[in-house]
Amino acid sequence: MQRIFVKTIGFVRNELTEDEVRDRNCDSDVVIYKEYEAGLEGIEDFSHLNIIFWMDRIRRSERKLLKARPRGHQDMPMLGIFATRSPHRPNPIGLTLVKLVERKGNILRVNGLDALNDTPILDLKPYDKWDSEEHMKVPRWWMMLERERTSR
Amino acid sequence: MQRIFVKTIGFVRNELTEDEVRDRNCDSDVVIYKEYEAGLEGIEDFSHLNIIFWMDRIRRSERKLLKARPRGHQDMPMLGIFATRSPHRPNPIGLTLVKLVERKGNILRVNGLDALNDTPILDLKPYDKWDSEEHMKVPRWWMMLERERTSR
Repeated sequence: MQRIFVKTIGFVRNELTEDEVRDRNCDSDVVIYKEYEAGLEGIEDFSHLNIIFWMDRIRRSERKLLKARPRGHQDMPMLGIFATRSPHRPNPIGLTLVKLVERKGNILRVNGLDALNDTPILDLKPYDKWDSEEHMKVPRWWMMLERERTSR
Repeated sequence: MQRIFVKTIGFVRNELTEDEVRDRNCDSDVVIYKEYEAGLEGIEDFSHLNIIFWMDRIRRSERKLLKARPRGHQDMPMLGIFATRSPHRPNPIGLTLVKLVERKGNILRVNGLDALNDTPILDLKPYDKWDSEEHMKVPRWWMMLERERTSR
């Protein structure tokens, strides 16, 4: 195992509760440090971005888990954490597709980011059809969770 | 700026040239370290994964660039690196959507990974419709590059 250093390039700014964050309907600001602002030039011509962030509320002990029931549901199968989107994983890296609402200098207003206030940002990628696949297959437990979520 | 430690959870194994890697038509193995193998259970029920990796061939000086012409083309506009998929960025994190061909224990055979042999793996995420957006907008220069690439 090798250890790698990453730098934070900015942080999330919002006033959302954990529930609002999870619902992915709200706007957040992605504040990029001034020293990286030049790196954003042209990003406003994309409608969607993948945001890569660091879930810094995850505790060290939670990074050691390798199995979990999705969202802790007792009626769900016990799964490997790489088969889930659980934040409890060896590297609590978050990846979320967001809509880019607008850019003002070093601040990107985005819709749908499921990250809490102050979450460190590691990278931003413009989203294109290479990142997109319509015909994916997912397991049955995943569809059940999804149905539950959207029916709330 | 904050520094964060990430751990490698495995590495890429293939015998591809840089050109073959870029074309994203070939198979590679993603070898996950034995200590994390339990974390893969159930991942074989997904058809697609997002692979997050560390582009370790990128030099320190290349991580300081903030602007570049896409693929170095002189007829392309000068853009911020976050508006491109250039590997030259503050954190050379790679993100690629791949097809999961099969899993054998701690080894995932995937199609379409654009990472060189021995590239460190940071995380794997199952791919679902939350990661997918059909109606994205991309800039004109992006479409031109894409046309050039697919006509080769």
